[in-house]
Parts: sequence; C-alpha cells; structure tokens
Amino acid sequence: MRNCVCGVDLGGTKIGIGIVDSNGKIIAKVNVPTPVKEGKQAVLDSIVKGIEDVITKANLKTSDLLGIGVGSPGPLNSKLGIIYNPNNLPGFENVEIVKFLNEKFGTNVKLQNDANAAALGEYIFGSGKGTENFVYVTVSTGIGGGLIVNGKIFEGANSNAVEIGHMTILDGGPACSCGNIGCYEALASGTALQRFAREAVLKGEKTIIKEIAGDRDIKAEDVFKAYHRGDKLAIKLVEQEAYYLGVGMINLIALYNPERIAIGGGVSNEFDTFYDKMMETVEKRALKPSLKVCDIVKAKVNDVGIVGAASLIYEK
Amino acid sequence: MRNCVCGVDLGGTKIGIGIVDSNGKIIAKVNVPTPVKEGKQAVLDSIVKGIEDVITKANLKTSDLLGIGVGSPGPLNSKLGIIYNPNNLPGFENVEIVKFLNEKFGTNVKLQNDANAAALGEYIFGSGKGTENFVYVTVSTGIGGGLIVNGKIFEGANSNAVEIGHMTILDGGPACSCGNIGCYEALASGTALQRFAREAVLKGEKTIIKEIAGDRDIKAEDVFKAYHRGDKLAIKLVEQEAYYLGVGMINLIALYNPERIAIGGGVSNEFDTFYDKMMETVEKRALKPSLKVCDIVKAKVNDVGIVGAASLIYEK
Repeated sequence: MRNCVCGVDLGGTKIGIGIVDSNGKIIAKVNVPTPVKEGKQAVLDSIVKGIEDVITKANLKTSDLLGIGVGSPGPLNSKLGIIYNPNNLPGFENVEIVKFLNEKFGTNVKLQNDANAAALGEYIFGSGKGTENFVYVTVSTGIGGGLIVNGKIFEGANSNAVEIGHMTILDGGPACSCGNIGCYEALASGTALQRFAREAVLKGEKTIIKEIAGDRDIKAEDVFKAYHRGDKLAIKLVEQEAYYLGVGMINLIALYNPERIAIGGGVSNEFDTFYDKMMETVEKRALKPSLKVCDIVKAKVNDVGIVGAASLIYEK
Repeated sequence: MRNCVCGVDLGGTKIGIGIVDSNGKIIAKVNVPTPVKEGKQAVLDSIVKGIEDVITKANLKTSDLLGIGVGSPGPLNSKLGIIYNPNNLPGFENVEIVKFLNEKFGTNVKLQNDANAAALGEYIFGSGKGTENFVYVTVSTGIGGGLIVNGKIFEGANSNAVEIGHMTILDGGPACSCGNIGCYEALASGTALQRFAREAVLKGEKTIIKEIAGDRDIKAEDVFKAYHRGDKLAIKLVEQEAYYLGVGMINLIALYNPERIAIGGGVSNEFDTFYDKMMETVEKRALKPSLKVCDIVKAKVNDVGIVGAASLIYEK
C-alpha cells in the first residue's frame, strides 16, 4: 500500500488528519483537538498522535508514506518550514514544524499556507485539473485563496500571496479584522453575510431569518434558508452577497487572468443559488479579453483541507 | 558590435524604436509615426522603416541583432505573436507581427503587452534587479502593470494578467473607460487627477490651477505645479491621488506579495511629492507580514517602453 501521503489540516480548534492516495481519495481520517492553551508542545503532541492513529487506522506503516503535508494558517515560511504566529493559534509561535515532523517520522515533510494547499489540492484532484492558470477561492468565515501556475503554487516573497480576502473592493467600506477597510472578506464572506443579516434584524426589518435562528445567533446558513423560503430581506442579502462575490471575481480576472476560478468553502454549498447573480456583475464589468478565457465553477474536492495538505507532496 | 537588441514600443500615435545594448543602454533611437488611419500595412511599413533607420543610425547590420522585441498595447497573444485589436490602434487587427518581422529581418522576434515588457525592462535593468517577485506599476494616462516572478513575466492565460488599472477599489465609484466602475485607473491615474481638478474648477473652487493651464485644458502636471506653489485645492487633490495610489498598493501587496513595487509612468515624476502620503495609507492598512518584505520605489529606467521591448530578447 505505497503511494500514500498524510495530510494535516491544522485549524484553530481541531486538526484534521488523513491518509490520501494518489487519486486524492481519503483512505482514513481522524480529527484531534488543537490544545493551543496547553502550549506549543501539546499541539505538536496532538499532531503526532493523530498521525500515528491515522496510519494505524489505514493499516499502514510509517515507512509506507511518501511524505506528510501540513496546511496551516499563516503567517509562515514554507521554505524554512516554520509557522510564525497565526492569529487563531495564539502561542503557537515560531514552530519549526517541518524539522519536528521530519525527525519524528523520518519522512519528507512539507508546509504550506492552508489556502495555498487547498488550491493545490483542488488543482491536482478537482476542478483545476489540466489548467495552467488556476485560482481557488474559499468563502467561509473569511475569504482566502491560492493561485496555481503551471502546477506550482504562486507563493510570493514570503508565502503570503493571494490574500484575496484582504484586497479593498469598497474603499471606505466596513472595517475588516485585518485592520484594512472595505476588504473583500468584510463584504462577501459568510461572516459578512451574517453581519449584514444581524444588522438588518437589529434595525427591525421584517424577516423570518431571526425565527430560523431561534435562540442562537444568526448564521449565514439561516440567510440562505430564508432565501429559499422567499424571504424578502434574505433575497436582498443573498443578492448583495452574490454582487460582492462578483466584484472580487472582476479583480481576480484582471489581476491573475486565470483559465478557471473555483469557489470552495462553506458558502459554496449555495453556489447554484448565487451563481447567476454573481455572473451578472462579472459579465457586465470584467475585462472582456480575460473573461473570455475564464470560467468560474464550484470546487469539487471534499475535505480539501486534508487533501490539499497531502497534495503538497505531489506538487511538481 | 554584437549583443544588441532592437526594441519597438508601439504606441497609438508614435512608435519608439531603439537599439539597446546588454546593459540596457540605448545606443540609437528613432521615432516614427503610427499611420493607423492608412491601414495595417502602413503601420507595418512604418515599423520596418524605423527599424532600418535605427540600425543604420547605430552603425549596425541587421545580422548584428540578437533579436527584435515588440511592446504593444493589448489584447494580444504573446505565444502566437499576434496583436488582436488594441483600443488605441483602430483597424490594426489580428496582425501576425512576429511572423512579419521575422520574415523581414530574419532574426528572433518577441511580442509582449507593453506594460509587461516595461516591467521586464525595469526588472532586468532597473529597480527590479535581484528580486524574485517584482511588480512594476505605470501611472500615467492609465494605470498598467507587470509582474516578474523569478525572472519571467507572469502572463496569465492569454497575456492579460496584471491589468491592475482595472481592479475595483471603490465599488460604486467613477466609471472607467473599460466599462467597470471604481477602477484603480479611474481614481489614481493622471487622467483621474486631471478629471478631479477639472470638476473642482467647474464647481468654482478657488485655485490657481486654471491660471496655470491658461487657455488649454487642465493637465495632471498643472495640479502638481499648483501643489508646489501651496494651492489649497491642489494640495487636497494631490493628497487624494496619493491616498488612492496607496489603496491600490494595498491590493498589490495582498495579491502578489512582492519584494518590491516600482512606480513608473508620467505621474512618477512626482514620486517624492506623493510618496509619504501614499505610504501613510499603505502602512496603516496593508497586511503586515507582506508589507514587511516589500518596498515601494520609483522606477529607474528611462525610455522603458523601448528598453522593456528590447529586454524581451533577454528574458530567461
């Protein structure tokens, strides 16, 4: 059972770890907690335990692995294999994770920004296959992305390229968690949709969104549910979401001139819901010669966090 | 006298043609008209005559040339060597310029988008030297740009990448000639500055800009002249120009994560005038890990249209 890779998707609350075959299929998978409050070593121990568990679960030996790929929130340095100080991993600072896992498992280890890893996974195993210029966009809590050019991740000077969530598309617009204003993420992420809905409800607008949410806070999914039940406010909000998604796409098309853009992340579950409205904006406003060669599709790969991390070992 | 290259900078009204040595120095230069109204063949004949003249002027023979590089407005296809239908060259459509010049002069010919060519010229011979991720921005009538990654032009799917002038930075903002709204170009180009000045004058704002312009239309340079003489409206307009330049830079830093951004084009003559104000915005709002590794400088190469076109022959 050779040709298998271990993918580690390091998140703020949990770590997804899987064994992925050369077709991008997950053979075995475990989730372990991210005990970030207990310190660096506890997180590393959790990762090691997860890798050992998933190897066992897949009936493999460590020596069967071609390597281990790690997708992590940035900032990080992929060349040095160091995670610096991700916002959602407080205290997990300056961790030489590649060196650590390499010494522990004696196999090839690669580290990459999680959005870049997901882009590579979607490129190798999903909708990016066969393209030479491919952009992956993840729309969920935030908006992230990755660009694959001729099979390779476009990293920029220090692995921070394609931070598309933090391009300004509406100067003077809402504040973003990054310190900028009018960011794509502040207007078109799931969190943004949720915020617009909460604000509207607070203003007393008539809607069934609040009723769908019940006692808990309103989530982006509630807005889509209300949309599908014909709620007027929800229709307005989803159309606005589609519109802002489109404005960001216009910029990606102008800046990267890709053959294909794939949208993944939680919000992409509603791809068919927002696609037409999004494309209305894109078709009206994007640069024609670039738009002509670009299509925008729904991402295909499930568990792209794990598959993407694993795909790092398959990168050209 | 080997190691020389001919650079052709194809513009809407004139064609700059030069012989450039391997240090990026222009040895001889001519300008010929772009007789676009007389048809395709007239333009091609003008290019041929210019190349012959400049070779003579430099005391060279055609066989001394390593090649001919052509920088042209897009849309074009650099791989196929075809210029499609640039806005400012009406009728000059579907021209196989690489094939034509190759047959005429029997030497290596390359074609590239003019902004990409300029970026390569600035990378090889100017402020981009030694960087691995370099963005060149030209701010004049419009805003264009090019990205050089590891010595190669980042082209995208059909040579239209890095059309940075047409990213939306202020959704709902002023209309752009491209059909989009709130484009970088519509807010921060020389033409935009000029438009803002004209609008203010029409509204009757107190300023010496009109007086500087005299009988002709107000130009961007007039605003800078008035700025240096302490004119209040000009100060406001130049500060706004610097601000919007900064907003665009924030996006370039987020999307390309470059080591260096060089600003060229006519407006960059006032680089020292707008730099501090621009950086105020950039430092406040750009992503910190990316900003840390990036500096923004004034472009160094003169006649970058010609030198950039010539540099195509030197591209890795």
